[in-house]
Amino acid sequence: MRSLVYFQSGGPTAVINCSLYGVIAEAFKSNEIGGVYGSIHGVEGLIEDNLADLRREDLEEIELLKQTPGAALLSSRKKLPGEEDPLFAKIVQTIDRHDIGYVLVNGGNDSMDTCMRLDEFFRKSGRDVKVLGIPKTIDNDLVVTDHCLGYPSAARHVMNLVKMAVLDAKAYSAGKVILIEIMGRNAGWLTASVDLLPEGERPDLIFLPEMEFDQERFLYEVREIYQRKGHVVCCVSEGLNLPRRNTGGVDAFGHAALEGVSFHLSEMIHERLGYGTRVMDLSLAQRADPYLVSRSDREEAIAAGKYAVRMALEGHSGEMVAMRRVPSDRYEVEWFLAPVKDIANRERKFPKSWLLSEMELSESFREYLRPLVARSVQVINENGIFQSARLRLERAK
Amino acid sequence: MRSLVYFQSGGPTAVINCSLYGVIAEAFKSNEIGGVYGSIHGVEGLIEDNLADLRREDLEEIELLKQTPGAALLSSRKKLPGEEDPLFAKIVQTIDRHDIGYVLVNGGNDSMDTCMRLDEFFRKSGRDVKVLGIPKTIDNDLVVTDHCLGYPSAARHVMNLVKMAVLDAKAYSAGKVILIEIMGRNAGWLTASVDLLPEGERPDLIFLPEMEFDQERFLYEVREIYQRKGHVVCCVSEGLNLPRRNTGGVDAFGHAALEGVSFHLSEMIHERLGYGTRVMDLSLAQRADPYLVSRSDREEAIAAGKYAVRMALEGHSGEMVAMRRVPSDRYEVEWFLAPVKDIANRERKFPKSWLLSEMELSESFREYLRPLVARSVQVINENGIFQSARLRLERAK
Repeated sequence: MRSLVYFQSGGPTAVINCSLYGVIAEAFKSNEIGGVYGSIHGVEGLIEDNLADLRREDLEEIELLKQTPGAALLSSRKKLPGEEDPLFAKIVQTIDRHDIGYVLVNGGNDSMDTCMRLDEFFRKSGRDVKVLGIPKTIDNDLVVTDHCLGYPSAARHVMNLVKMAVLDAKAYSAGKVILIEIMGRNAGWLTASVDLLPEGERPDLIFLPEMEFDQERFLYEVREIYQRKGHVVCCVSEGLNLPRRNTGGVDAFGHAALEGVSFHLSEMIHERLGYGTRVMDLSLAQRADPYLVSRSDREEAIAAGKYAVRMALEGHSGEMVAMRRVPSDRYEVEWFLAPVKDIANRERKFPKSWLLSEMELSESFREYLRPLVARSVQVINENGIFQSARLRLERAK
Repeated sequence: MRSLVYFQSGGPTAVINCSLYGVIAEAFKSNEIGGVYGSIHGVEGLIEDNLADLRREDLEEIELLKQTPGAALLSSRKKLPGEEDPLFAKIVQTIDRHDIGYVLVNGGNDSMDTCMRLDEFFRKSGRDVKVLGIPKTIDNDLVVTDHCLGYPSAARHVMNLVKMAVLDAKAYSAGKVILIEIMGRNAGWLTASVDLLPEGERPDLIFLPEMEFDQERFLYEVREIYQRKGHVVCCVSEGLNLPRRNTGGVDAFGHAALEGVSFHLSEMIHERLGYGTRVMDLSLAQRADPYLVSRSDREEAIAAGKYAVRMALEGHSGEMVAMRRVPSDRYEVEWFLAPVKDIANRERKFPKSWLLSEMELSESFREYLRPLVARSVQVINENGIFQSARLRLERAK
């Protein structure tokens, strides 16, 4: 019986450990799998023979993976080099030593590149190792799949946090311009999610990286809204395409903090319009909030892990598990496999046809999003704090 | 039958509208109260005769006040001038016009000043108007009362968000220094709440305004922890007492954003240690998150509103409703009234005796906090978004 190794790669999501849960659940009940391993720090664990023996974990802790943010097996941003690199010899050592027949890679665009390179290497070197990808990214920018695991939960977090800010911002008659910065380097899916908020609870302005940004028009709109309402709530993607200010001397603040578009817009509003501003960067909680997990996202992340195990056992390789919607009255998805070479290193932008204005996006988008975020989960607390899995991560012998 | 007016003042909390709910519930069932009014924008509504007739609201919407953040009646930061000011003549007009016999002021330190001034004015001018305060501040810095309504929910939010960040920060082997900025201008109660997180889920460093901050020691500790763990999570009160950098040219960014201590610390770490940093400002959600409301905080905020109505009807004035713990095996509070002049404009700092080090606070503090945050609430969602009250706020005739 060959063994299975699973790893996590790139930024975490609120449900990445649900896919780990699904992998474990399916692998444990199979009688075709020997060892069930987690590679620590993504592909680095394969290179350095640092695998955790998941069969040694407590079932209670495995259950808690469903509400554990972060990467429970730790993550990596390492990109694999060309296949002649000596690093592959080290991977082969690990693969052979543990008799690994199945490798599951849980990640986004870059991680699907890792998935593809591993698959190609094993094929060319004549090794029978099946490699499959499990999609994960709050950016929702993987092609082929209807949506990416982690996006619905991040969207639910963003929508709710923005509604909180909108209600809070109303309090004072002479209020501020609230600039809410939302993750998404190149694609605006996550920022766009606030468009689902109804009138009276939605931000005044929404800016995605896929939009043209006209500074004068922006200032005009901010002034117009401020004069009418006494405050403005504006949501911006971190990847909004702005002429950034000179970054000399700026590095000292750290990348994310000071090149932030919202600080730039804040400065502009202050200088040109004289209004008070408040920057609200939704930061890490966007990808780590167990309370605002979407129930379908959790269920699908688990299902993706299970499906990937089954497909690997059936002999598939070089593919990513993906979803498409079943035409139906109610929301339903079916799973399929797509060649990872069609997915790796590509990006799905927010469709231009859904960009109506900086005040409103398309109803088609809202129809797409609504079922993804509709349902909530229960969270197990202890002392008012969410419980999370404490894995032993005992090194595989 | 005399009428009652209630208003909200200062920054909102996640449960301030629970006190509004409690006031409405108690006032509606009383047969000693005529009109039940909400003064719009705090005391400004009294000055400008801008009162909402709360008897005209839908009961369904009133019910939703329990999970509605922000100030449902809108707020104000206006301080009342001396009693000779013509503004008091305008207040008297409103009071007389609506035959108001009871005024309830829901707010923090500054608002208790408003409460005190109104009470003194009515006494001196021979008007029979009872004025009572209802405490509200996430800063937890009002004296006399065991704790302030809103603080437990804010603490629960902060604890959980910090745990999310701690789990997220572990993902990479070469990680960052995460600087989490937490509200609290002068008192560190809210930042201190992270001390309840258990080992493995807690931040590495905690800095309150009540602590001496030694820059060299801070850098030494950050370096030591980073070298050992590969990342650092540090929680800082916004009011941490730092030698701030020259703020010339800084105003352009807006007050809260750029004078932020976490940016200052980030810059220092980057310059002196060369580590990557990420600033995470917990921002508005600290006072506006309905999902992380503490159930006892919600129940007590409602109870405070009800108690204030009863005490006003009994003829009390110039006092604030307050809680003390009943000596008992389980957590229990009893309500009492305290003279508002002993409370207004004073601050309760975090006790020096509970400051053990920047790594850990006192077990006595954890015992104090634990029952305040232990229980959670259910939130009613629609499309995955928390529902909130939509009041008519029909102007009282």
